[in-house]
Amino acid sequence: MAIYPCKPVCQVTSSDFFFSGLVNEASTENPLGVGGSFGDVTNFPGINTHGLTTSRADFAPGGYIPVHILIGFLSTTNVLYSKVLKASELAVIPRGLVHSVSNAGPGKASMLAIYNSQLPGIPLIPNNLFASNPTIPNDILAKNFQVSEATIAGIKSKFGT
Amino acid sequence: MAIYPCKPVCQVTSSDFFFSGLVNEASTENPLGVGGSFGDVTNFPGINTHGLTTSRADFAPGGYIPVHILIGFLSTTNVLYSKVLKASELAVIPRGLVHSVSNAGPGKASMLAIYNSQLPGIPLIPNNLFASNPTIPNDILAKNFQVSEATIAGIKSKFGT
Amino acid sequence: MAIYPCKPVCQVTSSDFFFSGLVNEASTENPLGVGGSFGDVTNFPGINTHGLTTSRADFAPGGYIPVHILIGFLSTTNVLYSKVLKASELAVIPRGLVHSVSNAGPGKASMLAIYNSQLPGIPLIPNNLFASNPTIPNDILAKNFQVSEATIAGIKSKFGT
Amino acid sequence: MAIYPCKPVCQVTSSDFFFSGLVNEASTENPLGVGGSFGDVTNFPGINTHGLTTSRADFAPGGYIPVHILIGFLSTTNVLYSKVLKASELAVIPRGLVHSVSNAGPGKASMLAIYNSQLPGIPLIPNNLFASNPTIPNDILAKNFQVSEATIAGIKSKFGT
Amino acid sequence: MAIYPCKPVCQVTSSDFFFSGLVNEASTENPLGVGGSFGDVTNFPGINTHGLTTSRADFAPGGYIPVHILIGFLSTTNVLYSKVLKASELAVIPRGLVHSVSNAGPGKASMLAIYNSQLPGIPLIPNNLFASNPTIPNDILAKNFQVSEATIAGIKSKFGT
Amino acid sequence: MAIYPCKPVCQVTSSDFFFSGLVNEASTENPLGVGGSFGDVTNFPGINTHGLTTSRADFAPGGYIPVHILIGFLSTTNVLYSKVLKASELAVIPRGLVHSVSNAGPGKASMLAIYNSQLPGIPLIPNNLFASNPTIPNDILAKNFQVSEATIAGIKSKFGT
Repeated sequence: MAIYPCKPVCQVTSSDFFFSGLVNEASTENPLGVGGSFGDVTNFPGINTHGLTTSRADFAPGGYIPVHILIGFLSTTNVLYSKVLKASELAVIPRGLVHSVSNAGPGKASMLAIYNSQLPGIPLIPNNLFASNPTIPNDILAKNFQVSEATIAGIKSKFGT
Repeated sequence: MAIYPCKPVCQVTSSDFFFSGLVNEASTENPLGVGGSFGDVTNFPGINTHGLTTSRADFAPGGYIPVHILIGFLSTTNVLYSKVLKASELAVIPRGLVHSVSNAGPGKASMLAIYNSQLPGIPLIPNNLFASNPTIPNDILAKNFQVSEATIAGIKSKFGT
Repeated sequence: MAIYPCKPVCQVTSSDFFFSGLVNEASTENPLGVGGSFGDVTNFPGINTHGLTTSRADFAPGGYIPVHILIGFLSTTNVLYSKVLKASELAVIPRGLVHSVSNAGPGKASMLAIYNSQLPGIPLIPNNLFASNPTIPNDILAKNFQVSEATIAGIKSKFGT
Repeated sequence: MAIYPCKPVCQVTSSDFFFSGLVNEASTENPLGVGGSFGDVTNFPGINTHGLTTSRADFAPGGYIPVHILIGFLSTTNVLYSKVLKASELAVIPRGLVHSVSNAGPGKASMLAIYNSQLPGIPLIPNNLFASNPTIPNDILAKNFQVSEATIAGIKSKFGT
Repeated sequence: MAIYPCKPVCQVTSSDFFFSGLVNEASTENPLGVGGSFGDVTNFPGINTHGLTTSRADFAPGGYIPVHILIGFLSTTNVLYSKVLKASELAVIPRGLVHSVSNAGPGKASMLAIYNSQLPGIPLIPNNLFASNPTIPNDILAKNFQVSEATIAGIKSKFGT
Repeated sequence: MAIYPCKPVCQVTSSDFFFSGLVNEASTENPLGVGGSFGDVTNFPGINTHGLTTSRADFAPGGYIPVHILIGFLSTTNVLYSKVLKASELAVIPRGLVHSVSNAGPGKASMLAIYNSQLPGIPLIPNNLFASNPTIPNDILAKNFQVSEATIAGIKSKFGT
């Protein structure tokens, strides 16, 4: 748990308990077509010690209504659990598992996420692996993914590394 | 924390991690004009040990768009923190505090709530006080609220007690 | 949990681990006839990280020996659990539930309470509802308790609001 | 934490939340002159998940009023923190530290203790060291306490080992 | 936390607290050249509720003494923290971060790991992504790694998918 | 838990996550013949919030290969659980129990220990009891161990008290 000492009572204000940061759609003009905003302990102080963060994700349009979201995660034994969610359906992704969410429908989609942490870190695996600073040596990545070092170098170049 | 032992791995299925129970609007045909559905550890097994519950509340219509929700809570020193929320705005209600939510707009409203517990109990204070079984003696309630015992008896009758 | 960083070891003194604040009877000269003192993380530093607070409550006299204390709480399904306690008997009140304690005997009574929190907040429901600042609108309270707004205004006046 | 699954709601009864086991004085007719009773998760089911145990200790008489209790504990750097407590004074003993309590007054004394665990284990160091089963080899104890093995054997015989 | 109820005291035996499962070197005859053994709550019952697991990893030889282990992890902002460890040096990998360990020396190497969980799950990212069951659609993986679907199909074939 | 606020992200460096303090053998030239080094939250900042400490203990030589370590602990009901460990064997000592470790073999021995706390305190019982400052009164110790006060005074003199 990221630990933040409690604010002195005299400094607590009403605005600590309200958050408007998820009202607006985030830009999805990026290679992944996904934009997001977070309300965590750093910008929404009232949640301190509640062990929660909330976020909004917006997915670029791909077509029309109805919106479908394909969500899934991989267990530690490589089982893929996934489902096409309709509006208002929920999914839980156990902490620490590799997961993916994509807009499988023809229109724009939004997703509200809640994290059981007040300052979650979200490592994006492709960026972690191929766009880190310093970079991971090509031979280690090649061995991990069982491809040639040239293939790794090609992927890295897509990530600007 | 309500403690539920982990399901044996061999009994875990994909459906444990998905929940459709909040898709539909709940009936609001009751004196409070609010209907709700919960996804907690008893009907959404995948959240076990994640310390979360989610719920949907639907509020009866009172008019037109735009929808406003008035939300507030009372601190332990009797300060009322409240705000009229617009769509997508968030509020946090510290655990254990007396709070209230009402549809202050002219149309129907829905609210998604997340609890940092996997089996939260939601005591409704008026029902707790005036509709309990067995009933709380009138003299204790009269003393608490500084009204006559007859007034207490009158309130109880509204709650069918 | 209210989080307090640990005191540097060099600043710890023997007096951090002892507390005399519950030795004396608190004044019970108030409308409720109850006085209380708390030993929590703010005035009893040695309990930091132990998740405990202790308090003493004194109840105004109503008569003779033997002292009886009526204690009870309401479950989230409006069941009232209560019992007349004799000296040295214990009760547990699950966290977050509405509860009440009254001196049902003819003499003075004292109660020692232990909280599984190092800085518990104790909202008094009547004061929360009828003596808050700012005040809760009369129509919301009237709807909650199914009484007229005039009745609400009458109750508020007793609380000086 | 000793983990006990929650009782099914349908099996919860009012008596789960009340406990009379500390009402009576425990016998102090033993070499230490101390008797005790515990209310923990095994005999006071309502405290499950609250992280608390309570106990009563009675100390054999040594004389008259006023009662004094000498309480102390040893830090990990061998500092002894101790104080003669008067009635209603409190002390906190950090978890896991070696401590001692004795009736330093001329009369009987009782102590109410609260543990931040729902099933605390209380190792008595002299019995642990000299009355274990199987016994700790004399040479190890002799080395630890820097006395002869004969001295160790003598102490063990007092403990019936 | 994976929750296991406590064993009844009468069923606890001395062997619950000892574990020999890490004594022998695990086979490293596999594509990764790494073998491992775990002592977790399922085979080392005494650690229940202690929040710990321990493991031994053996790394295939690549040459001579001295042994070096290159260890590193990626932060959520794609910073790579890494170091070549010498014998007896320690590293901590914050929970949930993508990390890698490789034997950078010319000889065999062993690593003892401790997890702050009593039943950790260890998703291997390459196997998660390319050897899951059911398989992740090629177009999703292609989009994530910015390569062609043919490249993804090629990687999957190396993992036997 | 000893609570340390998180370091601001901008102050985190790579060296926070690595620790070389257990590389070298600690001196065992002391009456117990044991030397130790700790990596805890005070000198290994990356473990903050992970609930872990690690240590190395070195035991003075007593002879030849193979090395044996006798490890044991005492339950709260005075049962001694012990075993002679061979290289790479593990033992768990439940938190708070009196325990002992000794080199039962003819050669030097080293032990790696992991604590499920990020700042464990290790009270040495003989020093706690006989070398504290201020000293524990001889009559209390005599009563505890059922020996004469002269015997207690003799033991204390060995500890320089």
